Amino acid sequence: MTDLDQRPAAPVTHSPAAAEFADRHIGPRGDETARMLAAVGYDSLDALVDAAVPASIRTDRPLDLPAARSEEQVLADLRALAGRNRVMRQMIGQGYSGTVTPAVIRRNVLESPAWYTAYTPYQPEISQGRLEALLNFQTVVSDLTGLDVANASLLDEATAVAEAVALMWRASRATTGTVVLDSELYAQSLAVTLGRAQAVGLPVVVADLSAGLPEVEGPLVGVVVQQVGASGVLRDLRPVVAAAKERGALVTVAADLLALTLATTPGELGADVAVGSAQRFGVPLFGGGPHAAFMAVRTGLERTLPGRLVGVSVDADGAPAYRLALQTREQHIRREKATSNICTAQALLAIVASMYAVYHGPDGLRQIARRVHGHAAGLADLLRDAGVDVVHADFFDTVRTHVPGRAAAVVAAAAARGVNLWAPDADHVQVACDETTTGQDLLDVLLAFAEAGTTTLPDDDGRFDLGFVEPRPADLPTDLSRTSGYLTHPVFHLHRSETAMLRYLRRLSDKDLALDRTMIPLGSCTMKLNATVEMEPISWPELASIHPYAPADQTQGYAELVEDLQAWLAEITGYAAVSVQPNAGSQGELAGLLAIHAYHRANRAPGAPDRDICLIPASAHGTNAASAALAGLKVVVVATAPDGEVDLADLHAKLEQHGPRVAAIMITYPSTHGVYEEHVREVCDAVHAAGGQVYIDGANLNALVGLARPGEMGGDVSHLNLHKTFCIPHGGGGPGVGPVAVAAHLAPYLPGDPTPGAAADGPVAPVSAAPWGSAGILPISWAYVALMGPDGLKQATETAVLAANYLATRLAPHFPVLYTGPNGLVAHECILDLRPITKETGVTAEDVAKRLMDLGFHAPTLSFPVAGTLMVEPTESEDLAELDRFVEAMVAIRGEIDAVADGTWPLADSPLRNAPHTAASVASDAWDHAYGRERAAFPLPSLRAGKYWPPVRRIDGARGDRNLVCSCPPVEAFADADL
Amino acid sequence: MTDLDQRPAAPVTHSPAAAEFADRHIGPRGDETARMLAAVGYDSLDALVDAAVPASIRTDRPLDLPAARSEEQVLADLRALAGRNRVMRQMIGQGYSGTVTPAVIRRNVLESPAWYTAYTPYQPEISQGRLEALLNFQTVVSDLTGLDVANASLLDEATAVAEAVALMWRASRATTGTVVLDSELYAQSLAVTLGRAQAVGLPVVVADLSAGLPEVEGPLVGVVVQQVGASGVLRDLRPVVAAAKERGALVTVAADLLALTLATTPGELGADVAVGSAQRFGVPLFGGGPHAAFMAVRTGLERTLPGRLVGVSVDADGAPAYRLALQTREQHIRREKATSNICTAQALLAIVASMYAVYHGPDGLRQIARRVHGHAAGLADLLRDAGVDVVHADFFDTVRTHVPGRAAAVVAAAAARGVNLWAPDADHVQVACDETTTGQDLLDVLLAFAEAGTTTLPDDDGRFDLGFVEPRPADLPTDLSRTSGYLTHPVFHLHRSETAMLRYLRRLSDKDLALDRTMIPLGSCTMKLNATVEMEPISWPELASIHPYAPADQTQGYAELVEDLQAWLAEITGYAAVSVQPNAGSQGELAGLLAIHAYHRANRAPGAPDRDICLIPASAHGTNAASAALAGLKVVVVATAPDGEVDLADLHAKLEQHGPRVAAIMITYPSTHGVYEEHVREVCDAVHAAGGQVYIDGANLNALVGLARPGEMGGDVSHLNLHKTFCIPHGGGGPGVGPVAVAAHLAPYLPGDPTPGAAADGPVAPVSAAPWGSAGILPISWAYVALMGPDGLKQATETAVLAANYLATRLAPHFPVLYTGPNGLVAHECILDLRPITKETGVTAEDVAKRLMDLGFHAPTLSFPVAGTLMVEPTESEDLAELDRFVEAMVAIRGEIDAVADGTWPLADSPLRNAPHTAASVASDAWDHAYGRERAAFPLPSLRAGKYWPPVRRIDGARGDRNLVCSCPPVEAFADADL
Repeated sequence: MTDLDQRPAAPVTHSPAAAEFADRHIGPRGDETARMLAAVGYDSLDALVDAAVPASIRTDRPLDLPAARSEEQVLADLRALAGRNRVMRQMIGQGYSGTVTPAVIRRNVLESPAWYTAYTPYQPEISQGRLEALLNFQTVVSDLTGLDVANASLLDEATAVAEAVALMWRASRATTGTVVLDSELYAQSLAVTLGRAQAVGLPVVVADLSAGLPEVEGPLVGVVVQQVGASGVLRDLRPVVAAAKERGALVTVAADLLALTLATTPGELGADVAVGSAQRFGVPLFGGGPHAAFMAVRTGLERTLPGRLVGVSVDADGAPAYRLALQTREQHIRREKATSNICTAQALLAIVASMYAVYHGPDGLRQIARRVHGHAAGLADLLRDAGVDVVHADFFDTVRTHVPGRAAAVVAAAAARGVNLWAPDADHVQVACDETTTGQDLLDVLLAFAEAGTTTLPDDDGRFDLGFVEPRPADLPTDLSRTSGYLTHPVFHLHRSETAMLRYLRRLSDKDLALDRTMIPLGSCTMKLNATVEMEPISWPELASIHPYAPADQTQGYAELVEDLQAWLAEITGYAAVSVQPNAGSQGELAGLLAIHAYHRANRAPGAPDRDICLIPASAHGTNAASAALAGLKVVVVATAPDGEVDLADLHAKLEQHGPRVAAIMITYPSTHGVYEEHVREVCDAVHAAGGQVYIDGANLNALVGLARPGEMGGDVSHLNLHKTFCIPHGGGGPGVGPVAVAAHLAPYLPGDPTPGAAADGPVAPVSAAPWGSAGILPISWAYVALMGPDGLKQATETAVLAANYLATRLAPHFPVLYTGPNGLVAHECILDLRPITKETGVTAEDVAKRLMDLGFHAPTLSFPVAGTLMVEPTESEDLAELDRFVEAMVAIRGEIDAVADGTWPLADSPLRNAPHTAASVASDAWDHAYGRERAAFPLPSLRAGKYWPPVRRIDGARGDRNLVCSCPPVEAFADADL
Repeated sequence: MTDLDQRPAAPVTHSPAAAEFADRHIGPRGDETARMLAAVGYDSLDALVDAAVPASIRTDRPLDLPAARSEEQVLADLRALAGRNRVMRQMIGQGYSGTVTPAVIRRNVLESPAWYTAYTPYQPEISQGRLEALLNFQTVVSDLTGLDVANASLLDEATAVAEAVALMWRASRATTGTVVLDSELYAQSLAVTLGRAQAVGLPVVVADLSAGLPEVEGPLVGVVVQQVGASGVLRDLRPVVAAAKERGALVTVAADLLALTLATTPGELGADVAVGSAQRFGVPLFGGGPHAAFMAVRTGLERTLPGRLVGVSVDADGAPAYRLALQTREQHIRREKATSNICTAQALLAIVASMYAVYHGPDGLRQIARRVHGHAAGLADLLRDAGVDVVHADFFDTVRTHVPGRAAAVVAAAAARGVNLWAPDADHVQVACDETTTGQDLLDVLLAFAEAGTTTLPDDDGRFDLGFVEPRPADLPTDLSRTSGYLTHPVFHLHRSETAMLRYLRRLSDKDLALDRTMIPLGSCTMKLNATVEMEPISWPELASIHPYAPADQTQGYAELVEDLQAWLAEITGYAAVSVQPNAGSQGELAGLLAIHAYHRANRAPGAPDRDICLIPASAHGTNAASAALAGLKVVVVATAPDGEVDLADLHAKLEQHGPRVAAIMITYPSTHGVYEEHVREVCDAVHAAGGQVYIDGANLNALVGLARPGEMGGDVSHLNLHKTFCIPHGGGGPGVGPVAVAAHLAPYLPGDPTPGAAADGPVAPVSAAPWGSAGILPISWAYVALMGPDGLKQATETAVLAANYLATRLAPHFPVLYTGPNGLVAHECILDLRPITKETGVTAEDVAKRLMDLGFHAPTLSFPVAGTLMVEPTESEDLAELDRFVEAMVAIRGEIDAVADGTWPLADSPLRNAPHTAASVASDAWDHAYGRERAAFPLPSLRAGKYWPPVRRIDGARGDRNLVCSCPPVEAFADADL
C-alpha cells in the first residue's frame, strides 16, 4: 500500500489514460493542429518550432519532471499532501483570523469560473460586475476606516504598511526626515517595511509609542501606528496622532476592519491613511494568502494612492458606469519615477470580503464583532478569576497573558487539545478570538493554562461546565467606541437572504466576460485554461484553514508541496533555487533585484562603486523600472532597435559609460514584442562581461517551457507569473503569484522569513507577510505541472506558438503584424498594427477593441507595448473553432473599417465608433444611425445563437477622473438613467 | 472532546448565532414581514396563521426536533457522519460501477445552481439549455442501443425494467399472457418488477434463458433479457430474441451503455425496447442514487413510452426549438387509465451522463470501454493462470469465479486490501472492473484470492510486479461486437477540450431561467432555496463513492443519517415510521398504496371482499390515480364542491355504495386548490368508519410543517416530496425523493430491501433498486432540518403562508383569486383565474405565462389544477423585493391586457400574444408590430439594468408532436434559421 491509500477519501488511479489531461488543457485536437500547421506552412510542430525559436537558445536537455498523472491521481496525491497538514482551531492571530466564508459566496465566487477566470477590468464595459463588487469593497473600507477614498486592495497588510510609508514620503514631498513605526505593528509588517525602506535608504525607526513619540533628528515625515496592537492592546490613539500632527507628520493607522465596526475610526482619530487586511471578512486563512489588504486615505491624498482605484463615470448614453480611475498614476506610465511597483491586486479576495460585508450588512458585522469581543472579554475574566495575569485592560479580540517561563507549556497543552495559541516569547501567551470561536474553544484554552501549571482551576473536579464559558457579546469601552454609522448604502441591506445573495452574485457576473464565455486573447497575459481539477483543492479545509505561523509539524503538506513546486520551477527555468514568497510578479521582480543588489554589495571589491544601475530596454514593461527603483537601483534606458530587439550598439555604449556601476539588465524573453530575439545571448554576455547580472522577466515564459530555459540563456534571475504560465486564474485582477528563481550564487539572497520570531539572520528582508506568500493557491500550479508532465508542458508551449502564428497568418491580410522574428514567425503572441489604418480611416485600435465586445470577445491588449496596436495571445488552450471565431470577428471588423473608408458610414456614426452597443440601444424605438440595428447587434449570424450584451456603452474615462467618485453612488444615479 | 473533534477537517462551532440560517433561508426580513402583514391586514404572523389555518387541524404539540445548528456546525456534523462511511475501491458491480466524473462537469453542472435549481422544462422557451442537454442524452441512448426513440431518463434500472414490462403489455394489447424475465437480470430489477407485476396481477415468470425460452401457458407477451448478465456473462442474444419473435412476443434488452460502445446493439439484435442505467457515464455511485435510467424503443412504440421525451419543433419565427413532446401521454391526462405513474425524471443526472458522452465523444467512450474490458480480460487470464476457475468465457467487465466454500474468505481478504468484491453465494466471487480500475486493484484482487487460499501465486516471494498486471485495452469477440457507428452528431465532437466544455455548459445554462436568477412561483412545486451548505456535502467522496450494496460496516454514516432523517420526518408528519426508499413522489404514492393494500389483505375478514377501491377527488393530481392503478386499486372519483373542498355528500354516497371494498381515499392537504379545507377531519372519519385508510398526499406539506401533522389529522399514510418542502433542488426535472410515512399499523408494509441476497421476507416488494433510494441527496434534507430547527421550520411555513396571501392581496385587484379558505385567506399558494379575462379579451393564461418571460420570470403553474388559470406559490424564500417585482410585472401585464381590451393593440399583434420576444426579434431592422420595440423588450424600466433574453420565441407544440424528432437535429436546421 502506498501513502495515498492511507486517505480513504481519495481513489488512487494509475490510469493508462494518464496523459489525457494534456488533451483537455490544450485546445486544438490532432486534426486541428494539422490544419493550423498547414495554414502557417509547416508540416509538423517540430518544424514550426525549429523555424521560430533560434537554435542558440534551445535547450538540449528535456524537462526532468515527474511523468504526467491523471486528474484522479493528482487529486489523490493532493489529498495525501493535504492530509499531512493538520487543521487546528487557530487562535494565533497576528493578522490572520479564523472566519466563516458563507457557503453561497464560496460556491458562487471562489469556486465560480465566471468570477475567477475574469481578467483585470481594464476594459470596463465588459467588467461592470466585478467593478461594482470592487467598488463595494472600497465603500466598506472607506466607511469602516472613516477615510474618504479607499483603493481596490493591496497584496497583504505588510506590503500595505510599506506602501503607506512610501506614500507619506511622497505626499510630504520631504527630501530628508524620518518615519516612525509603532513597535506594536505586526512583526511581519515591520520586517517587510524595514526591508523596503532600507533598500531605498529611507530613515525609519521603530519605537514604543505608548509613552509618546520618540525624538528623531530632522523632520518627522510620518508615523505608522497599529490600532489593535500585535500584543492585543487596544489604545486610544488620539494623543499620538495629535503629537504627530503637531510635528507636521502624516499619520497612518494599521487597523482591523472587524474592530472598526465597534472602534473609533482612523478618520475620526485624525489619521491621513489607514491600512490593514480584509482577510477576516470571509477569506480563508489559506496558509498565508492570498488575502486582500486595503488602504484608505483622506481627501487630498487620493492621487498618491498606490494600486487600483475603481471610480464612477458615465457611458456614451449618459448612464452611470464603473471604471478604473486615475490609471495615469499607474507604474507603467511613471516607470522609474514610480514609488510603487504594484500591478496585481487581490481582486477575487477583495470581492469575497466585499460580499461578506454585503451579506452580513452593518448589523451583522457589528454582531460578529461584539461576539468576538465578548469571547475575548469573557476569556480574560475567566483567566483572571483563575489567577492568570492578563496584561492589557483594553483589547478587542486578543488576550495577552503573562505566564513566566511557562509559555511553551501552555502552547503545547493547547495544541494537544487541538488549539493553536501564540507565544511571542517564553513568558507570554496570547489568545486571539475570532468569528469561529466557541465556548468549547475557551474551555480548552482554560484547561490548557491549567495543565501547564499556570493556574489551578476553581472547580474541584477539574471540569468546567460549557455554559460557564459561553460569554455574552460585548461592546468596547465608551471612550474607544465609534458612534458613527457605516454601510448605509442600500447594497449592504438588499442581499441578506441566501436567495437574494445568490442572484446578486449571478447578476454581477453575468455583466462580465470571462474565460467561461470567450477567449481572452490578451497579449502578455496568457489567459489559458484554469482547469477545475486544479481549482478544486483550494477549498479543502486541510489547505484553506492553515495559519501561516502554525508550527512546522502542522504544515508538512504545504512544506512538501512548496518544495516540489520550487524544484519543478527551478528545473523548468534552469535556475538553482526558487522562492514562492512574492505575492505578485512585481514582488518577484523586487525580490530578484534585491537579491542582485545584495549580492553585489556582498562581493564589492574595496574601493569599487556601488553597483546601483539597472539597464532597462525602452520596450520593457513599466513595472520593471518601478521595481528597480524600489530596489534602490537607478534606471538607465537602453534603446530598442526598429526590429524590436535590444539595440546592441546602445547597450555597449551604456555599458561603456556605466560599466562598474551596472548592477543588472532587465530584459523580457521572448520580448514584449512577442518575438524570439536572436541576440539574447550576446546581450547577456555583454552585461556579464561588465560585471552585471542578467534579469530575465518571466512574463512570457509560456513561450519557453520545455524549449528553452532562461537560466541556460544567460539569466541569473527571473520571476515567474504563476497566474500566467502556471494556470492560477486571474481572478478579475488578482491574486497573482510571482516566484523568484535564481542561479546558485544568488540563492543566499532570496527573501527572508517573515514569521514573527523567525531568525532574521538572512541578508535580505522578506517581501511578503507570509513565508510561502499565497500558499493557498500554489496547489493550482503544482497540479498543473503534475497533470501535464514534461511532454505535456512542451506540447503546450509548441501549441501556443502555433496558435499565435496561425492567428498572425490568418489576420495578416487584414491587419499588419508589427514584429516578427526568425523566418517571419512570431513567438506566442503577435502585435496587430492599427496605426496605418487609423491614419487612413480614423478608426482606432480602441474602436476595434470595443467593437470586439459587440462580437462577444474580450479585447486583446490595447496599446501595449506600442500605442495604437493590439497585442493578441491566444494561448494553447483555445481550440481551432474559437480561433476561427476570432478571425471571423476580426475580418468582419475589417470589413466595417473598409465601409468607413469608402464612405458607407461616417466614422463618427459607424458601428465601430459607437461600439459597444447595449441591448437597450438597439431595441430603442428611436434609431437614427447610419447603419441598421442588425448590423449593430449581429454583425455575424452566429451571434444570434446566443449573444453577450455589454451592459453599458463606451465609458468616458476622462470625466470619471475629473469627478472622482470611488464609493457606491446613490441609487438615484441609476434610476435617472432608466428614463 | 466530542465525536466531531475526531475529524480534523471539520471546525466545530457552537455558535451563539446558531439560528442564523433560518434568516438566510427565509426571504423577508423582520421589517418586510411587518409590511407584508400590514398589506394582508394582520398584525402578527400568529394572527394570520390563526385566521388561515382551521383550529381543527392545528397541532398542539410543537416539533420535537434538535435545536437549530449553524451552517458550520452542520457541515462539521455531516463530515463526522460521512467519516463513518468507508470509501473502498468498488468492484461489486451489479448495476453500479465506479466512474470518473470529469471535474469540469462536477463543478459546472452538479455543483452549479444554474443547473440544479432549474425546474422541469414544461415552459420550453426558458428551458432550451437543459432541453438540448436532455436531447443529447436521448441521442446517446438511441445511438448506443440502436433503437429509434429514447426518453429523457427514468428513475432507476429496476423500475425501468418494470416499466418495460408494463409497456410490453400495453403495446401488445394483450389481456392474457405472460412475460418472461431473464434470471440473469439484476436481483433488484427482478424484485422491483415482480412486486409491480404482482400488484396488478400480471403473470410473470423468471427463467434461465441460456437454454432457450421456457414453456408458458397462453400468449407470450414479452421477454426481458439482460445482455451483460448479473453473473457477468455476455451472451449472444440472437437466438432468444428470434425465439421470442417467433412466439409473437416483444423483447426488452437490459443493457449497459458502456458495453454498447463495443457490443452489438439491442436494435441490431431485434429488440423492441432497451433499458438500463446511465450511472457509469460519470455519475457518482451516491450510495445508490440518484442516477438516470434510460429506455429506448423502436419506431412504432414511441407513443407508449413512459416518462418524458424531448422533441424538436419550431418557434413563432420558424427557428428550431426544443420542447417536451407528447405531453398528452402524461399521467396527469390519463389519470386512472395510466399504466405508469412516472412524473419526476432524473434530469440532472441524465445531463451529467450526456455531458460525459459529449466530453469523451465516441472515441473516448470506446477507449474507456476497451480499457475496462481489457482489465477484466487481463484479470481473468491472471486468475486462470493462478488456477482459479473462471466461469464465463465471454464477459464485458465482470469476472465470475468458482471458489467452492471460499467466497466469503476472498471477499474478506479483498476488503482488508480496500477492495469490495461481490459474492452472490458461498461458492462464487465476482470482480467487476470499471473506468477507475487500475493495475494496483487487479494486483490486490489477485493477492486476495491467494490469501483466501483459492490459489497459490506463481511468484515465489509472493510479490507481483505492477507492470505484470497492467493489461492492454481489448475488444470483444467479433461475433459479439458492434460494427455500427454512433455519436456522429457534431455535438459529440466539438467540446473536447475543457475550455470548450466549460463554455458549452455555460452557454446552455445561460439560455435557461433557474432560481439563481428569478423566483419560480410554481404552484404545487415549492421552489424554495436550495442552500449551498445543503448542497456541498453531496460531492464529498465519503458520500458520493459508496456502493449501495457495500457491507453495513462500511455505510454506518449513511445508516445514521437515514435513521435521523426518517425519525425527523416522522415527527414532522405525525406518523410512526418512514421509508426514504422511493425515488420520487410517485414512487412514494405507490409504496403507500401498496402498504394499504397489503395491510387490508393481511387483515381481511373471512369472506370479506378485497378492499380494492381507491377514492380520489376530482381535483386530485393525476399521479394519484395512476399510482392507485399501479397498486392494483380501482379508482372511484369523488366530486369536488364548488368551493374546492371534497363534496361530503358525494363522499358519503360513494362510501355507501362501495363501503366494504374501499381501500382508501387519497386527498391532498392543503388541497390542490391551495386552501386549508375545513372539513378534512370529517372526511377522514367517514372513510375510517367505512374501514378504509386515509392517504394524505404530502405535496403541499410546506403549508403544514410545524402547524399541523397529517398523521394527527386522520392520515394513515403520506408521501413527502423532499424536492419540494425539504430543499432538494429540482435539477431541471429531477432527481426527486418521495419518502413514504405511515402510521404504526402500516409500518410492517413499508417497501422491502432490494439488496441482492437480502432476506426477501417482507410482505411488500421494494420500489427502488437501492435500499435507501437516492441516498446521495438525502444529506440535503438532513441538513435543512438540522439547520432550521423546530422554530425555523415553523417560521418558514408561516412565512410561506404570508407570502402567498400577500401576493393574493396585491394581485386580487388585477386578477381574480379563484379559491380562498377560512377568512378569505389562501394557504401557501393561490390560483389566479384568467378565464373571465380570456372570455372578455381573448388573452389567455398562456399569453400571461409567456409574457412573464419577457419580464424575466418563470411562469407560475399553468392550467393546473384548473384549466385557464395560473397557480402561484412564492414560498418562504423570496424576499419582499422579489415579491414586489412579481406584482409589478403582473400589474404591467394587466395593463397590457387592458390595452388589448380597449383596442390599443389587436390581440393577435399584441406584446402578449407575441411573447416571448427574442433579442433578434426586437433588434431586427424590420418591425411592423402594433407596439414598439421598447414595449416589447422593456415593459418595465428595471429590465434595462439586466434583462434575461428568451433564446426562442413561442414554440409550436402541436407541430413537434406531429413530426416527432427526438434526437439531435442536424446543424443545418439551425443554420437555416439564422438567415
